[in-house]
Amino acid sequence: MTDRTSSLPPSPPRPDSAPARSWWGWGALDQALPDAECASLAALVPGAAGSPLPIPSIASLDLPAVRVSAPAALAHLVSSAPADRAAHTYGKAFRDVVRALYGDMAAAPDLVARPQDERDVVDLLDWAAGADVAVVPYGAGSSVVGGVEYRAGEQSGVLSLDLSGLDRVLEIDRISRAARIQAGVLGPDLESQLRPHGLTLRHFPQSFAFSTLGGWLATRAGGHYATLHTHIDDLVKSLRVVTPSGVSQSLRVPGSGAGPSPDRLFLGSEGTLGIITEAWMRLQDRPSHKASASVVFERFPAAVEAVRAIAQSGLHPANCRLLDPGEAALSGVAAGGGSVLVLGVESAYGPVEGRLAELVALARDHGGSPVEEASGDGDSAAGTWRSAFLRMPYLRDGLARMSVISETFETACTWDRFPALYEAVHRDVGAAVQKVTGTAGLINCRFTHVYPDGPAPYFTVIAPGRHGAEVAMWDEIKAAAMEVLGEQGATVTHHHAVGRDHRPGYDRQRPEPFALALRAAKQALDPAGILNPGVLFDAATA
Amino acid sequence: MTDRTSSLPPSPPRPDSAPARSWWGWGALDQALPDAECASLAALVPGAAGSPLPIPSIASLDLPAVRVSAPAALAHLVSSAPADRAAHTYGKAFRDVVRALYGDMAAAPDLVARPQDERDVVDLLDWAAGADVAVVPYGAGSSVVGGVEYRAGEQSGVLSLDLSGLDRVLEIDRISRAARIQAGVLGPDLESQLRPHGLTLRHFPQSFAFSTLGGWLATRAGGHYATLHTHIDDLVKSLRVVTPSGVSQSLRVPGSGAGPSPDRLFLGSEGTLGIITEAWMRLQDRPSHKASASVVFERFPAAVEAVRAIAQSGLHPANCRLLDPGEAALSGVAAGGGSVLVLGVESAYGPVEGRLAELVALARDHGGSPVEEASGDGDSAAGTWRSAFLRMPYLRDGLARMSVISETFETACTWDRFPALYEAVHRDVGAAVQKVTGTAGLINCRFTHVYPDGPAPYFTVIAPGRHGAEVAMWDEIKAAAMEVLGEQGATVTHHHAVGRDHRPGYDRQRPEPFALALRAAKQALDPAGILNPGVLFDAATA
Repeated sequence: MTDRTSSLPPSPPRPDSAPARSWWGWGALDQALPDAECASLAALVPGAAGSPLPIPSIASLDLPAVRVSAPAALAHLVSSAPADRAAHTYGKAFRDVVRALYGDMAAAPDLVARPQDERDVVDLLDWAAGADVAVVPYGAGSSVVGGVEYRAGEQSGVLSLDLSGLDRVLEIDRISRAARIQAGVLGPDLESQLRPHGLTLRHFPQSFAFSTLGGWLATRAGGHYATLHTHIDDLVKSLRVVTPSGVSQSLRVPGSGAGPSPDRLFLGSEGTLGIITEAWMRLQDRPSHKASASVVFERFPAAVEAVRAIAQSGLHPANCRLLDPGEAALSGVAAGGGSVLVLGVESAYGPVEGRLAELVALARDHGGSPVEEASGDGDSAAGTWRSAFLRMPYLRDGLARMSVISETFETACTWDRFPALYEAVHRDVGAAVQKVTGTAGLINCRFTHVYPDGPAPYFTVIAPGRHGAEVAMWDEIKAAAMEVLGEQGATVTHHHAVGRDHRPGYDRQRPEPFALALRAAKQALDPAGILNPGVLFDAATA
Repeated sequence: MTDRTSSLPPSPPRPDSAPARSWWGWGALDQALPDAECASLAALVPGAAGSPLPIPSIASLDLPAVRVSAPAALAHLVSSAPADRAAHTYGKAFRDVVRALYGDMAAAPDLVARPQDERDVVDLLDWAAGADVAVVPYGAGSSVVGGVEYRAGEQSGVLSLDLSGLDRVLEIDRISRAARIQAGVLGPDLESQLRPHGLTLRHFPQSFAFSTLGGWLATRAGGHYATLHTHIDDLVKSLRVVTPSGVSQSLRVPGSGAGPSPDRLFLGSEGTLGIITEAWMRLQDRPSHKASASVVFERFPAAVEAVRAIAQSGLHPANCRLLDPGEAALSGVAAGGGSVLVLGVESAYGPVEGRLAELVALARDHGGSPVEEASGDGDSAAGTWRSAFLRMPYLRDGLARMSVISETFETACTWDRFPALYEAVHRDVGAAVQKVTGTAGLINCRFTHVYPDGPAPYFTVIAPGRHGAEVAMWDEIKAAAMEVLGEQGATVTHHHAVGRDHRPGYDRQRPEPFALALRAAKQALDPAGILNPGVLFDAATA
């Protein structure tokens, strides 16, 4: 630490005004859809019927008996309260929400720990390793891949390690535009601590409000921006990780060619190799110039070609979100079978209208028709999209209460393979939806990120489910999706991580020599095998 | 492989017109300085004297006896000819060249193998593992950190594995702008195979003409460009690696969040975990628009601030090379104590003059004075610099023949730490030069790469050495440099890699839990410990 950086005084205690969090569904409790809205939303889905599943009370839940207890010295950090255990049982996938609604709490952790500093994390790991207690790291629980749900069953107990107490920006280096940040901070709290310094991490995944820096790092999160440095991987300078074999602190430098990157081993390790407690992150000046535009295409293949040209142009749009006809219709952005491309450009340095014009020209060259912007703030298309985007998980929960299957899967592939992938998904996942639900359902696609060498397509599936069978139905559709991604040479996940749900596709995709090396690294760092058993590795491996 | 990619027919045999390579020094034999030029160059160094060291003939070299022989099935791939062994003994650091000139061949490999395909690599590794023969991967031998020099001494023999036979571009995906390329291809051969397709890898390290794709990948090479995607790490889509425990092939996708990146384990592994045989690489359209400018600053600190502003502007110059007063004077770019900033902008998409003007304006805001360009080709400042840059290793060899210490070291640090680092290097390395050589010598600095969070400073040291003591003298100066980098929180290497020479600084910098994990991975992939012993790991670790 040099005198050019400033260590920050402790923040005042956070006011208790943050809205209460839902234990069973997404986000804030007061944002959940009322029963009537659930029903009217489901009425738009052909084949859906019935009335909303009731939300069980915590008191009514049948939680398994607590099998372990923390030693006296750690007791003040640990809770076995039913509300804590219930809220830490699942992530926020469709199958998680449905199981919570049905009161299925078999996977509940015995204890929830809330360390207040790194020493607490070390002490909790020491105790867990000695007591054969599995440790499931928990940021804000937004996993949609079973990343925070213990399923292995071999340990004597399960501790959910909730890192939300580590929520401070500790140090800011304004000159190098970087900050040392605790891993448990939620997106909005992080940004509010950076704002007085005119800086931003500028990492906005859809889960932003209910996910943490540590979770983003452990799962290699993708941000909202379509191109350039959007992955959290690219924003990291150094990591501090508590492992059962010691604390790992990498050097804070802008670039280093000294051997394989230590940080890249922990990025994506999903809590299996250690607990990320702090990171030095690259920050940016807050963008002062923004502009956006929408372009409609009659033909989806032409839109794909336009996006490829843009992705390969070096113009680096902040947004480049292509909605296929189904997705455009569902979002209410375009009717009549058109595809919509939302473009956005941002800069903290200077005007961006010229760059936006170049991007729109490229889209026009490929047959796109720019849509006139009504608003004058230069950000309306992106803004409209963003509001809808952030509202989606709440709508998903409303549909889940109506037994409507509403879920997503995502991937990335090279441009040469995308047309075949798109067709195969509609054919094979479509067949699975038809078989499982007896309806065609909806299978929509958008690009969340685009690279010079390929897009990251994100698929949404909506179809009526049957009361009590929702999870099994989705699992069958998801298995078909994982199969088709593997067949088409696309990754099993672009930014949702592996968790437990993606293990079949991941195990197939991961090169076997790399798996050997990773298992050996796991054994070296976590010899007792307590860290998030079942994620990335078989529980028995550790 | 899909029908959107094209597999290429085998290239015709390469004409024998490539200039003969120097076995003792840098590059092409016919580019070495004549004796008279060596002497007149050394005359510019205060304290240097004498006549050039003679270049020993291969026949005069005292090579150690060959201890092992390959089995009959592999004999056609293997040579024990003195010329082969001598040329594969060292890399191309100052200390390597000097030792070669003195005929010190104690480290010579027993054998040099030239596999022609991946099967050959597998067979050679199988034999070596069974016969306790160390394998030192060799691309074109441009290491300046002892990366290709066997020093461990525990194995029964040493095989230099020369991958130059794997020199083809195998497949091109024009749509996704990518190619599958064999690892042993030299820079110019790679570009000449891509050129007919209008594509380029656009990775131009200083060693470009005499280094290979596999070497760049194994050592995490830095390219010529100052910002954005200049590291080879960022240009990789997937790797194929032969390890003693099997062949690792990662999935070719533009992005994946499926666990820790397999490629990132092998990038920077410097031949200790496996032999990279192929990679899918991201390509670019060849830039059609270029512009460059030079800006002079009276005060170096002001120039540093200008570069920081540029690095943080998001304007992404292709070149942003700052020369401190000593470096500018040495290059003949500016006299009188000024610092020089060379800026360049490139695009395959559209005109770049506007962006260059913005960059120059930023430099001017910080006190810089733009220099009028004489040439009209828009590329003269960068071009002049580039020619001198590529000539430098030959000049270094000329000085080495005059016992003049002429060597570099490089690093990266955050902006907040750079002023203290710059001062400490001049103080502490300056003191070492004074102590060792009895003269002040020259210690110059330039930035090779700049990031929003810090620069990559590259230091050149020139001082008179004493006949017979050159290596020991440099080693003492280098030890001081490694010490000061560690103290100042700068990396031991930004793009020269670790090899054997940087082990002390690397061992201090590498977090211990990561070292545990990496050693375990090494043990899993290379159980016999034959791969490049002494690099990254103690030879005994394996």
